[in-house]
Amino acid sequence: MAIDLNSDSGESFGNWKMGDDATMMTIVTSANIACGFHAGDPHVMRATVTQAAANGVSIGAHPAYRDLPNFGRVFVDVPPAELTDAVIYQIGALQAMTKACGTKVSYVKPHGALYNTIWHHEAHAAAVVQAIVEVDPSLPLLCMPNTVVERIANERGLATVIEAFADRAYTPEGTLASRRIEGSVIHDPQAVAARVVRMATEGTVETVDGGVIELTARSICVHGDTQGAVEIARTVRGALADAGVELAPFA
Amino acid sequence: MAIDLNSDSGESFGNWKMGDDATMMTIVTSANIACGFHAGDPHVMRATVTQAAANGVSIGAHPAYRDLPNFGRVFVDVPPAELTDAVIYQIGALQAMTKACGTKVSYVKPHGALYNTIWHHEAHAAAVVQAIVEVDPSLPLLCMPNTVVERIANERGLATVIEAFADRAYTPEGTLASRRIEGSVIHDPQAVAARVVRMATEGTVETVDGGVIELTARSICVHGDTQGAVEIARTVRGALADAGVELAPFA
Amino acid sequence: MAIDLNSDSGESFGNWKMGDDATMMTIVTSANIACGFHAGDPHVMRATVTQAAANGVSIGAHPAYRDLPNFGRVFVDVPPAELTDAVIYQIGALQAMTKACGTKVSYVKPHGALYNTIWHHEAHAAAVVQAIVEVDPSLPLLCMPNTVVERIANERGLATVIEAFADRAYTPEGTLASRRIEGSVIHDPQAVAARVVRMATEGTVETVDGGVIELTARSICVHGDTQGAVEIARTVRGALADAGVELAPFA
Amino acid sequence: MAIDLNSDSGESFGNWKMGDDATMMTIVTSANIACGFHAGDPHVMRATVTQAAANGVSIGAHPAYRDLPNFGRVFVDVPPAELTDAVIYQIGALQAMTKACGTKVSYVKPHGALYNTIWHHEAHAAAVVQAIVEVDPSLPLLCMPNTVVERIANERGLATVIEAFADRAYTPEGTLASRRIEGSVIHDPQAVAARVVRMATEGTVETVDGGVIELTARSICVHGDTQGAVEIARTVRGALADAGVELAPFA
Repeated sequence: MAIDLNSDSGESFGNWKMGDDATMMTIVTSANIACGFHAGDPHVMRATVTQAAANGVSIGAHPAYRDLPNFGRVFVDVPPAELTDAVIYQIGALQAMTKACGTKVSYVKPHGALYNTIWHHEAHAAAVVQAIVEVDPSLPLLCMPNTVVERIANERGLATVIEAFADRAYTPEGTLASRRIEGSVIHDPQAVAARVVRMATEGTVETVDGGVIELTARSICVHGDTQGAVEIARTVRGALADAGVELAPFA
Repeated sequence: MAIDLNSDSGESFGNWKMGDDATMMTIVTSANIACGFHAGDPHVMRATVTQAAANGVSIGAHPAYRDLPNFGRVFVDVPPAELTDAVIYQIGALQAMTKACGTKVSYVKPHGALYNTIWHHEAHAAAVVQAIVEVDPSLPLLCMPNTVVERIANERGLATVIEAFADRAYTPEGTLASRRIEGSVIHDPQAVAARVVRMATEGTVETVDGGVIELTARSICVHGDTQGAVEIARTVRGALADAGVELAPFA
Repeated sequence: MAIDLNSDSGESFGNWKMGDDATMMTIVTSANIACGFHAGDPHVMRATVTQAAANGVSIGAHPAYRDLPNFGRVFVDVPPAELTDAVIYQIGALQAMTKACGTKVSYVKPHGALYNTIWHHEAHAAAVVQAIVEVDPSLPLLCMPNTVVERIANERGLATVIEAFADRAYTPEGTLASRRIEGSVIHDPQAVAARVVRMATEGTVETVDGGVIELTARSICVHGDTQGAVEIARTVRGALADAGVELAPFA
Repeated sequence: MAIDLNSDSGESFGNWKMGDDATMMTIVTSANIACGFHAGDPHVMRATVTQAAANGVSIGAHPAYRDLPNFGRVFVDVPPAELTDAVIYQIGALQAMTKACGTKVSYVKPHGALYNTIWHHEAHAAAVVQAIVEVDPSLPLLCMPNTVVERIANERGLATVIEAFADRAYTPEGTLASRRIEGSVIHDPQAVAARVVRMATEGTVETVDGGVIELTARSICVHGDTQGAVEIARTVRGALADAGVELAPFA
């Protein structure tokens, strides 16, 4: 099975720069592009879409709660019907920009607090699914396995694609270990790369307590917002190639 | 020739209401729907699109400078390339919402200060035209005649549709008399209706100094943001019907 | 004991109007003025401060979560230290405007979801209290009795002033009955006025299940955002005057 | 005469970082702190105020047009009365934060497009002056000499402090050479430092065409938004010290 590497992209805003999208586009196979509600603006979107297209990187919409001041990283208890409309709006804005650039949106991955909330929040999960169903039910949803949003997406007929996190420790239950736990974020590029190769070739990951669990992911999320993150992503890609794993977008 | 009545719509924002869209949708044939940069939000957009579709009203994108605090009513000296991207973003957001509601965007009419600026500002006019060319060059642009934006749109192959203003006095040169001039805005419903009937049946309008000029418009702009404005719009529609003028959207 | 009538004010934003501040300022004795994070803008703030000062109405800062799209009405899980700074910012902005208008801020009342959240949310309650302690610990906090924020405010040495709601039904425990319960919001002006007179003269209120509880409030909150709300406020004021209750701000 | 070094500060926003305020606070004597309308947010303001206070750096309010997407760098044709209120709001927000941190606002320097516009725009210049007069007429205004805003400020009784730009070429008329002219921005730290020493010790500067003009400035503006900019600022400070020029804030 081919493996996809995805990364959040296009998260600059106006005069503020974030991440090294130009370099990351040479490493990943899918780019989750911010749509202006947590980061990104129309001009940043064009630059990012153009970079993705030039590198053959698949483009995903990366909708979020409407919250630039908090970068979409905190829960906002918005009414579900309004969340549906906010997600439609964001996907549409990116669709128009990809059309202007001669390409298209191929999937959806929610951002930050929205991504985490819909693991368990029925109403917000259903709201996100509803938006995709209404805009284009052929768009797959990139998500965590065994979550409320995965279940609802499948019930509504959306394709779901499972992702794993390259640099995050897992609990024995297959969830992410809290960032507050010592060792929950792995910083050594070689260690991260070895974990990803194991996910890709064996379908397993070592848990935070030293056990091993099954973890089958079609896509691996890597970060690109710091120089160290870019180095990790590059190391992961190299290790996958060395292990003979094919890299290819899922959509 | 059929005549179109267009009106700005969907200009509420969150908890703040503006205009009586529900009533106006029973009067006009085209609705210029705010796209979130000067007014409107995703939830308001859905409500407005739904009302337009239910009444068979043609839907236009109503992009603006990004300026909620000033309602898009003041000039913002944004770089032209960024303006192009902002217009693409807004059109795309509305396109997605219309798709979610089973309908579509049929034309573009810029809002407020952007509308006025592109009468004469070459770079901003070209930026708006570029956006439409990139998103969908089949979308006509609703505009004032004899303006920079009309010329550039035609040069770039866009269809342009000429509009006139129901309640505004004209100069002998065919431009709008400044709002600062006494009598430049006409408030009496019967007087406004008589002017519109004359535009539609004779293709002329009385100027602010008492002369008569030719004015051929396929669409007439009416306002809906006050109770008085709704009454004027209703009177205009009735007078056109009484005069045997066919009312029909242009797109 | 004198009774204060307070109302949310200055909740227009740019071109969008809300409420009838001019009339409400002739009815209430304290105005909770929006500070720009959920509603209000600098120009609206000046107009509202000017109206309050002209009518001898006491001015309170009405800080909120930073969330114009939701009018501050939904919970935002912002880090507490950032909430403290957001409240300081809002109070300061209003302080400068009152200084420009020759008056001053006399108290603080949080808005909407922030107001409700700090009844029980320790970290957000402490964050709001911390802001007032840092800006001006002589400013009293207008709040619900028997809440987390009242306790923390008193622990930190802030004066608290208890308010009751004119048009809301109470549970036997003295909390507000949920808006989802039939009869939880009282719409009849005479019924509302009778309840307020009873609060002011007897210190009691009839509960939603027909019992009677003690309720001692120095201030009564009335609404001004609809024509019906203005009518209720006027009736309440008249009934208090008829009952010989002195109306006076608490700060 | 002592010389002040001022720099724009606190221009991060939420998750986006800009500049190296921590280092710049060890170099400059005055910090122009963003107030949230073009950059900065309440939490960034606290961090920046704290750093300034810890280094004995004088704090100035750095108000701007309300335009985060364009970083306050483009002209916004806002009504003057609304501009006055926007400047009052921003100054007040920073005043409250300085009070919370045990310090104070000592001067005002407008930002970006607003700074440049009020060199010549009578209504916006008067609006900014009016705001300072209303909030605190003892606050000096840091500005360019021979400008409309300097004249109006003096007419209204405000103290003005003249600044020069360390890295910008001057015309023979004493204005800044356009950034579009080759050589209008000087990048070599030693060259910049030599120019600043000449300004401080001789009161002159070499013009873009090789002449020499008088230029008497109490404050020199240095940038801190790039690593190169920090290096220039450090070199300027060192050269002034070597030349025996006293460094001291003007307020």
